[in-house]
Formats: sequence, C-alpha cells, structure tokens
Amino acid sequence: RKDSLWKRFVAFHDALSGWLCVLLIAINIGIIAAMVDIGAVWLTNIKVGICLPAFYLSQEHCCWTASNQTYDQYQHVHCANWHQWSSLFHVTSNTVAEYAVNYVAYVVFGCTFATVCAILVKTFAPYACGSGVPEVKTILSGFIIRGYFGAWTLLIKSIGMILGTSANLLLGKEGPFVHCSSCCGNIFARLFPKYGQNEAKKREILSAAAAAGVSVAFGAPIGGVLFSLEEVSYYFPLKTLWRSFFCAMVASLMVKLLSPFENQHRGLFYVGNNYRWFYFEMIPFLLLGILGGLFGALFIKSNIAWCKIRKTTRLGRYPVIEVILVALVTLLISYPNPYTRMPMSTLIRRLMTSCELDDESLLCDYQRNSTSAYEKNEAAKPLTGVWMSVGLLSSALVTQTILFIFTFGIKVPCGLFIPSMTLGAITGRIIGILFEACVYYWPNFFLFTIECSTADEQCVAPGFYAVVGACAFLGGVTRMTVSLVVIMVELTGGLSYSVPLMCTALVSKLVGDALVGEGIYDAHIKLNNYPYLDVKAEFIDQATAVNVLESKQEKTELIMLPRDGLTLNELMTIVRTYKYNGYPVIASQEEASIIGFVLRRDLQLIIQQRILTNGESNTNLLISFSRTIQQHQQSNLIHLYRLLNRSPTTITLDTPTTTIIDLCRKLGAQTILITNDKGHLVGLLTKKDIITYVKQKKN
Amino acid sequence: RKDSLWKRFVAFHDALSGWLCVLLIAINIGIIAAMVDIGAVWLTNIKVGICLPAFYLSQEHCCWTASNQTYDQYQHVHCANWHQWSSLFHVTSNTVAEYAVNYVAYVVFGCTFATVCAILVKTFAPYACGSGVPEVKTILSGFIIRGYFGAWTLLIKSIGMILGTSANLLLGKEGPFVHCSSCCGNIFARLFPKYGQNEAKKREILSAAAAAGVSVAFGAPIGGVLFSLEEVSYYFPLKTLWRSFFCAMVASLMVKLLSPFENQHRGLFYVGNNYRWFYFEMIPFLLLGILGGLFGALFIKSNIAWCKIRKTTRLGRYPVIEVILVALVTLLISYPNPYTRMPMSTLIRRLMTSCELDDESLLCDYQRNSTSAYEKNEAAKPLTGVWMSVGLLSSALVTQTILFIFTFGIKVPCGLFIPSMTLGAITGRIIGILFEACVYYWPNFFLFTIECSTADEQCVAPGFYAVVGACAFLGGVTRMTVSLVVIMVELTGGLSYSVPLMCTALVSKLVGDALVGEGIYDAHIKLNNYPYLDVKAEFIDQATAVNVLESKQEKTELIMLPRDGLTLNELMTIVRTYKYNGYPVIASQEEASIIGFVLRRDLQLIIQQRILTNGESNTNLLISFSRTIQQHQQSNLIHLYRLLNRSPTTITLDTPTTTIIDLCRKLGAQTILITNDKGHLVGLLTKKDIITYVKQKKN
Repeated sequence: RKDSLWKRFVAFHDALSGWLCVLLIAINIGIIAAMVDIGAVWLTNIKVGICLPAFYLSQEHCCWTASNQTYDQYQHVHCANWHQWSSLFHVTSNTVAEYAVNYVAYVVFGCTFATVCAILVKTFAPYACGSGVPEVKTILSGFIIRGYFGAWTLLIKSIGMILGTSANLLLGKEGPFVHCSSCCGNIFARLFPKYGQNEAKKREILSAAAAAGVSVAFGAPIGGVLFSLEEVSYYFPLKTLWRSFFCAMVASLMVKLLSPFENQHRGLFYVGNNYRWFYFEMIPFLLLGILGGLFGALFIKSNIAWCKIRKTTRLGRYPVIEVILVALVTLLISYPNPYTRMPMSTLIRRLMTSCELDDESLLCDYQRNSTSAYEKNEAAKPLTGVWMSVGLLSSALVTQTILFIFTFGIKVPCGLFIPSMTLGAITGRIIGILFEACVYYWPNFFLFTIECSTADEQCVAPGFYAVVGACAFLGGVTRMTVSLVVIMVELTGGLSYSVPLMCTALVSKLVGDALVGEGIYDAHIKLNNYPYLDVKAEFIDQATAVNVLESKQEKTELIMLPRDGLTLNELMTIVRTYKYNGYPVIASQEEASIIGFVLRRDLQLIIQQRILTNGESNTNLLISFSRTIQQHQQSNLIHLYRLLNRSPTTITLDTPTTTIIDLCRKLGAQTILITNDKGHLVGLLTKKDIITYVKQKKN
Repeated sequence: RKDSLWKRFVAFHDALSGWLCVLLIAINIGIIAAMVDIGAVWLTNIKVGICLPAFYLSQEHCCWTASNQTYDQYQHVHCANWHQWSSLFHVTSNTVAEYAVNYVAYVVFGCTFATVCAILVKTFAPYACGSGVPEVKTILSGFIIRGYFGAWTLLIKSIGMILGTSANLLLGKEGPFVHCSSCCGNIFARLFPKYGQNEAKKREILSAAAAAGVSVAFGAPIGGVLFSLEEVSYYFPLKTLWRSFFCAMVASLMVKLLSPFENQHRGLFYVGNNYRWFYFEMIPFLLLGILGGLFGALFIKSNIAWCKIRKTTRLGRYPVIEVILVALVTLLISYPNPYTRMPMSTLIRRLMTSCELDDESLLCDYQRNSTSAYEKNEAAKPLTGVWMSVGLLSSALVTQTILFIFTFGIKVPCGLFIPSMTLGAITGRIIGILFEACVYYWPNFFLFTIECSTADEQCVAPGFYAVVGACAFLGGVTRMTVSLVVIMVELTGGLSYSVPLMCTALVSKLVGDALVGEGIYDAHIKLNNYPYLDVKAEFIDQATAVNVLESKQEKTELIMLPRDGLTLNELMTIVRTYKYNGYPVIASQEEASIIGFVLRRDLQLIIQQRILTNGESNTNLLISFSRTIQQHQQSNLIHLYRLLNRSPTTITLDTPTTTIIDLCRKLGAQTILITNDKGHLVGLLTKKDIITYVKQKKN
C-alpha cells in the first residue's frame, strides 16, 4: 500500500515535470512574442514619424486619447500629437519637399534596421537566419544540428524579427517564432533530466514548443498544434497532444495578456461570422485556389533557383550587402504605393474588412443609395476610388511578388506566412471587387438571381475573397492542409467559412502538387541536403532488403567485431580507419551471429581512457564483449559487455523495403542489421542509405 | 517519357481511389444522418401530439407558417394546427383528465418505440447495441470482430437510433454514428481492392469514417477528425489526415444540405461569440471542472458495476425486458418535469441560450429595469420563476443521473455524449444562476467590482456556464482533451471561449484520472476483455524480452517446424493439436535459425486440398519449406516455400519491453519471434502475451 502510494507520487512527479517544462516554455515564448510585437510596431512607426509627448508610443497609441483624430483615405489615423518627420523638420510649406523628406526618412530608417539586423545575425548567430522550419523539421526527424537551438540564436532571432519586419522587408514572423520557441524548448528541457538527457523525449517537448510558436505568431492555439502535428513534427505521440495544446494555449494567452491594446479574445484578422457565402461563389473561390497553386509553384521554383544561385556563386559571400540591397529596393518601391507602405498585417486586416456604409476610404468608394446601417448592404456601383485602389493593389501584387522571391532566404530571420497571405489577400480582394461589380452590372445572370435575391446579407463581399485568397496562396506555398484551414478560421474568427476555405486549400494544393511536387519547406530541406526521410509520402515498392543493399552506391566495407580475441591495437586501427557510427559485434568470424552493436563514440572514449592510464605500452590487451569472463583472464582483458546495445534492429534479407522505411520512420532506427537464413550478419543499412535509396527510386 | 506518364496515371488513379472511397462514405453517412435526424424529430413529437393538416410534419414545422403561434413557459411553440393527443380525443374540459391522457399517450408511445428497437436489435443485429466506440477502437488496433461492420448492423443501428432517442431514453447518437460510418467505411472499402484486401489500408479508411461519424452527429468536422485522431484511431498516419478532414467536411455538409429547416452554417448549439468571460469567473469554471471529474468517476464506477451485474447474473438473459423496464421508468419519471420531458438536445440548447430582455420563459424570470434591447444586459434580480426552474433542474439532475447509469449498456444503440452534456449543462446553468445572484446581491465584493464595473457585456451569463458545464461533464466521462474543446467550440460557434473550456476540461480530466484511471470507453474495453493495447499510456519498465517470456502464465509449448523432413502426417497432427495462429519454421531441430513464419490457416488449406485430391493414402509425403528443391525429389514432396513469411518480426532476448510494445503499437506486430545470441529461436510472444504482461505490471 505504502509502496503503491510512493509509486503514484513518483509517477505524478514524472508526469508533472513535462507539464512544468511546457508551462515555462509557454510563458517564456509568450513574453518574447509580446516584446517582439510591441517592439516591431514601434520601430515600424518610427520610419514614418514620432509621438512628441511620449516618444515610446506608436502612432495608434499616440492618437488613442487625442481629441482631434482624423483618418486618411487609407484609414490611417492622424492627430496633432503625432509628427511626421517632415513636420518635425518644419518642411510643411512645400508638398514636394515634404514628400521627399518623409521618403528619405522612411528609406534611411528602414535600411538602418535591415543593416543592423544582418550584421547582428552574421556576427553573433548565423543560425538565426531564415525561417527555421526546415531545420526544425529535420531535427525533429532525428538529425542533430549542434547549436541550432542555442540561447544566442534565440536572442538574435528575436531582435532580428523586430528589425526585419520594421524595415518593411517582405518577411513574416511565424517561422522564426517556431524556431525561437524550439530554442526555448531546448533550453528549458535541460532543467528536467527526463527530457534533457533523452533525445526522443526532448523531441516531444520540441513538438509542443513548435505548436506554441505558431500559436503566438497568430493567436491560433488549435492551428498551432495542428501545424506542429501536420507539418513540423516527425512522429507525434498522442499522449503529448494535450500537453502541446496546453503549451500553445498558455503561450497565446500570455501574448494577449501582455499586449495592452489588443482585443483579448479575438484573432489577428478578426472578421467574425459577418460574411455569408453562397454556393455560386464556389466558382471564384476555386479560381482563387488555382491562382494560389500557380503562385505557390512559381514562388517555389524561382525562390529555389535564386537560392541555388546564391549558394553556388560569389553572391553568397556577401550576405550583409545582399540584405542592404534588398532592403533598399524594397523601401524605395514600397513608399510611393500607400498599400505597400503600410505594414503587411495592417494591409491584410484592411483587405479582409468589409466596407461599412459610412466608410469613406478609397477601397470603399461605392455609390450607396442608403446610409442607414439597418438596411441590407446590397451590391453598389463602384466609383473611381475603387478602381484606383484596384490599380494600386495590382501594381503592389507584381512588385511584392518579385521582391518576395528575392527576400525569402536572405540572411535575416524571415518567415513566409504573412507575405504569402498578403499577396493572396490582394489577389482575393481584386477578384472580389471584380466579381461584385459583375453582380451589380448583371444582376439577372442566372447564377446570381437564384441565391442573391433571397439573401439577407450582402451577396458578394470582397472582404471575404481576401480571406479565401490568403488561404489559397499560403496553401500553394506551404502545402499545409487541415492546419491551414484551422489557422485561417482562428485568425478570422469565422467558423462558418470552413467549407469554402477547405475547398480552396484543396484546389490550391492539388494544382501546386501537380506543378511542383513539394512545399517550400521540403524544397529547402532538399536544397540544403538535410537527411530527412519524408514521413507523409507513400512509398510503393516491391523490393526487399537485398535490393537496397545491392543498390548502395558507395560499397562500404562491412566491419564486424568478433566477441572475443580482438586486441586493443586492432580495435584502435578499426576505429581510426572506418569512421562509421558504430560496429556490429558477432560471435566469431566463422559464425557471424549477432551479439550486439557498439557505438564508435563509446569505443573511442574507452581507448582514450586506456591510453591515458596505461600509456601506449599494453596495446596488446584483449577486448571481450562476452557476458561472463573467467576469473584468470581478467588481468589482460578489457571487458566491454556494458557498452553493447544487445538489441539492435535486425531484419532478414527478405524484409520488404516498406517495413524498413517504417522501422526508420516509426521506431527511429538509425542502423539496421541484416541477417541471412542462418541468422548470420550479412549487411548493414544506415538511415542515410535508406534515404538515398528512396531518392533514387523517386527520380 | 511515356512510361513516366503511365506511372503518373497509375499513381493518380491509386491516390484517387482513396478519395473516391471516402467521398462515397461521406455522402452515405450524411444521408443516413439526415434521415435519422428527421425521423427522430418526427417520432419524438408523435409522443406528444400530431399535426392534423399534414401528419408527417413535426411540431415546429407544423407551426412554422401558422399565424397563431404561442410560446409556453418552456419556449415550446403551440399553434392551432398542432393537436395534443388529449385534444384529439376531445378530452379538453377537465385538466386532470387532459394531463392523464397526454401522460398515457407519452408513455405508451415511448415504450412501444423502445420495445420495437430492442426486438429489432435482438433479432436482426445483436452487434447494433451499445455505443460501438470501444469496439471500433479495438478493431482499429488490429483485432478482428467478424460481422461487426455489416450492412445489417448499419441498417438496424440507424433505425434503432431513431427509435431509441424518440423514446426519450437517456442516450445519444454520436457513438452509434461512429459505428454506422465505420460500417459504411467497411462496405465501401470492398469496392476498392487497394483498401478492401489490405487490413492496414482499410483501417485508414475506417479512421476517416469515424471522423465523419462525429462530424455528422454534431456538425463538427474539425472536432470529428481530432476525435478520430485522439480517441478512436490506433495509429493515425499523417497522410490520411487530409482525407479524413475531407470526409468529415463533406459528411457534415451533406447533413446540412438535407436538413431543410436548419441554419446551414452554424453549430448544433450555436451561441456565437455573444458571451464574454472574465478572469474571476475561473473560480466557478474550475468548480465545474471538479464536479465534472467527480461525475465522470461516479458514472464510470457505477455503470461498470451495473454492467458486471448484468453480465454475471440472470438479468443478461432478458435484454428486451430490461429495455422495456428502463424505458417505462424513464418515461414515467420524465413526463411530469417539463425539462426532462423535452428532448435532451432541445434542453441543452435552451440552457446554453442567454436570457434576452424580452424573454418571458420560466428560466428568464428576472426583474429587469429596462426593456430596451440596446442597453447593457446587467445582472438582475431573479424572481420566483428562476428559483422554480432551479428546483426543477435540480430534481432533473438527480433522476437523470441515476437513469443514465442504468441506461448506458442496455441492448439498444446508445451513445453518451448528449446525456453527459445534458447533465453538465443542467449543473452549469444552476451554478451560473447562483453565481449571477451572488453578483447581483453582493456587487461590491472585491472580485466582482474590478472586472464587472468596466464590462460592456453582461458580467455573469448563466448560459455560458451551461456550455462550460457540458464540457466538464463530457470530459469527466470520456477523458477526451483537445477534441473535446474543439467539439465544444464547433458546437457553440464561439472561438473566444477556448481558454475557459480548456481549463475546465483539464481540471475535469485531472480529477477524473485521479479517481478512476480510465475513460468510459477504455473501461468498457476492459470489461469486455478485448485485446487492446493502450496506445496512450506511457509504460516504464526496465524488463526485457526474457522477463516477458518467463512471466507467461500458461506455458505454451514452442512448436517449430523444421525446413525439411516433416511428413504430411506429422504436420496434420501439429496443426490439429496446437491451435496457434501460426508456427515458426527453422533450419533444423539442431540449428534453430529462423527461416520464416507460416500461418496455421494456410497450412490447413493446403492439407484440405491434398486430402481432397489424393485421399488419405499418401500422408507420408514430405513437407519442404526450402527455397530450391532438387528435381528428383519433386514427386513425393509438398513445396510450401511460397506460404512462408520470410521476414517475421524478430528480436533478441535482451530487447527492452518498451521496444516490444512499440513494435506492436506502431508496426502492428502480432507475433514476435525471439532469438538468443546464436541467432537461434528460443521463444515466441504473441500480442496477447504482451497485453497480459502489461496488465500484470499495472496491477
């Protein structure tokens, strides 16, 4: 009874440590995310102007309580407290000069941020560059990149995110957040021996941390867990699902608690259940899906091509100069167009919002017959303002797409969710406006009459097309599925849109997969030659272990250590000559039945110890891997039984390749021993051999 | 080039067949669900009365267009077209007689439905009884129950669901829907050889079908997928996630398309984002969580105890009489209380809805100072009506809990989501009303003043407590986690409630797990002794295969077939004597290296064929499992090489038990061969041995 209570306590403590660990991670990444958010908003505003009474306030917060708020055509707030740089330098008389001063300030500040960011990354933490998701995926599949999840990387990546987004570069924060929270996960896992000392257990914590990363980036805890499950994690044990969810939830709650002016319970691009969709709208939605797939394929192809050029030519040697150039071009191009001048998340929010009747912005320049808020919001005649913004948005689409291709992959922290969504939202809104115009000018077209005539709500809402477009473009680039739909639902807060979003994501994935067979993350994994065995692809093959063995390109010699009789000297030669991960141990050279597997690392340690204590003198000592040894032998024998992994993964020559792949994927086997009919060792396959084989078969 | 195109086409067709299969399943289960829904509503209403102009209309649809609609205190609609049984028999003068006639009609109809249901199940499809989720779980873990997914079961279970819910029994439809859609999955999988002929592939389809089951029951496609992932499926390959989601989505869309009067884009218990929650409300929410955990433990303990009594005593021999008795008691008790008289889903919807200012029902009998819909809905003084309904709800809580314990497990199709949620919603609403009264009477209590004074919305909304209560009670019974929260969010359409729902579910699971270590489904699996190896429990053990072998209780003899030299006669004796699943084949009795594994089923077939063709005469024929045989031997030899599984799962004696369990869980190994240092066979473990070992260790 007492014993059972003690056991229960131990089990409880054991279970608790995991929860405590993810709680710490969640709180930490929540705080980091809130700081990044606040910092980025402030720095972004500094490019434009400053709040004179309190320099630390952003434009929005500066005008929060001001009595003289005005809104311009693009829904920017203005007030007396907020000073653009031109007015600060008293250049207000001449419009051209005013524009020039503001333009220069914008470009100079932006370039400075980008430069500082690139220098920080290059000097202190080279791993902090890029999205991080391909690397996190690879690490979770069992590969080890030392230092990738270090404290410096975390710090520099967090600062880099603030600087990068403030510089108006075409990059987002979700990928870097996944990387940052994995860093947090790695750091905190060290505090708990259960997780810090066991790579497999640590990966459970890292999966949860990855979920928290997406969760804080978007305030989408469920989407974050599904993203971790679907895209990032290699093997996601169900028992950690709940813990990941907890981690994601606490992290997103932390961000909301710490962001003082945010609406605490709503998504980033909240539109609620305001829109209603009709079945005939499936046609433009599917069109958006196709466009999304095309965009994804175009982006992946050109981005990978450009990254290859960067890798192989001299360009790769000047990362800081590349960042400065990209930033300069981006800033110069984006200032003149008000839609690209504003931060991307602001633009997305604006594009997804529907036009209220009293809205006077350029995008909502419709001829309304009624101004009563209680009447039905019917299709209205678009005026010049609408067509002007369509023009501005189209030009933004072209320039931003080109910039995006060159930006993703430069040596600063850069994610791709927000840029992809921006381009998608622009396309969606344009198509929405055009389609709404169709409904207005041809109301009697048979598709429109059936459903529009009975509708209570607006029949075609361009804002909703921006939502669908964002989903389509993001799907085309990343090839996410369920997690994409859930993230979009959580971002917009509209559960009733799941059907059109799913259809669009499906079409976009189909089109994308038909053109380029993999998403951007997998493409980058391939580009960098990471040893990643795709967990999702179905591998159909009739071959067996024999074929895999035969197809091995570099015929490496199979080194087997005999159980007894090897001298220390011989062992040293083997360890020095054959730099494999480890060596199988067999009964004897005549009867090659498997005794176990010994890691080269362990052997090296033993050899070093022996040489340190005894000097080079007695290298003729015998090595024994036997379980028991006779007493009289003990003196001149090194007993290595305890180093032996006595249950290495073993298969026969006739084992199908699908089983071999499952052993790697599901059980995480790194080395597989192969026996013949007699139970004798005849070959050895490493995970790398299998990855090579799968790649060969695919091409 | 041509070859590659052809390959692409084959791959495309191959991929398409899976999608087509789930599409058919989704459409089918959607149609079935819509028919069940419509049928159940109509039959439920028949107990009360009939629509005279059109007998096939339910009460709500009957009064849909009527001009003289009135609502009673419990928000039931009444109109002239709708006739209660008393008015049909012209017993309207005397209130007592009227009540009596209605009462009798209600009980007689209800009892008839229950009886028909029980007889149908007993006569045509005994497998149609119960929830089905424990069995689906077991089957997805690799066990085979023949006929469990048959067409008859599907038909009878669908009809049974209509009859069972119409009889006002304390049972729901989600579990049976999971079973029904798995039946659909099984039936349609037969059309596609890729899925029909491969058990592992078929399970992928069944996982998707299970997702569709929950999806149609609640209109919760995302929750359905997560339920399938978390609770039902044993191993959920990521590549099928998207297909499951598609299946769930199409199925829920079908139901919505076919249910003519439903709001097409909303959850079953839609409350939207209308409620706002405050941090101090966490206290009552956690209280609800604790109550949910307690309820779950109580329910599981008593229900399992009662099911054991049923199994072991004579009671189990009279299932129909048991059903009739339970129905009779349920109907007699539930008629007098208006809250139990109405269908459970109606009650839940009512409890979750907030009190509008112009609401005059009993539950909303508050003293309002204002009747303007634009003013803040403040805490108001509860009048007698509210306290009366609290009394009615409390008595309902007691009676329904007791009835629920006796109902779950009777021989009709019965799920437990809706009853658990009903009891939770009742508890939640009661606590919500009490807490609101506290806020009203002590507005200056420090917890209330801080947040309530600044709130724009109602400070404590009892309707929201019903949502939280439903989540807590369902969590206590099933121990679901992420899927529970997502299902609740989808049911209510309120994404902003995920935090309180998650906290409540967490507390309820913790409390429940501390009292009873497993959910109701696992408890029933245990009760029925299904060979199910829990996939979620972490199993910590230092033992190895040796220990498992030694702990085997029934020491079964290890039968090994030699590769050559066995006569047909000897083989027949072995097959007759040792009724194992199969036998390992070894090189020779002296050198027991493993050649392969042969199934008993295959051997039996061969023996039968031989006896049929050759008669008993030549039973001295030799059996050979060799790869090649000499020409001159051919005449008196039976060559069985092709029957051999040449890559059986093989491990060494030193393999840790955790690895053995992983082999069963993740690779689906049924029989594991064990070799010693020399590579010779020394033992054999079946999945059952391992399940027994795990159970032993746990107790």
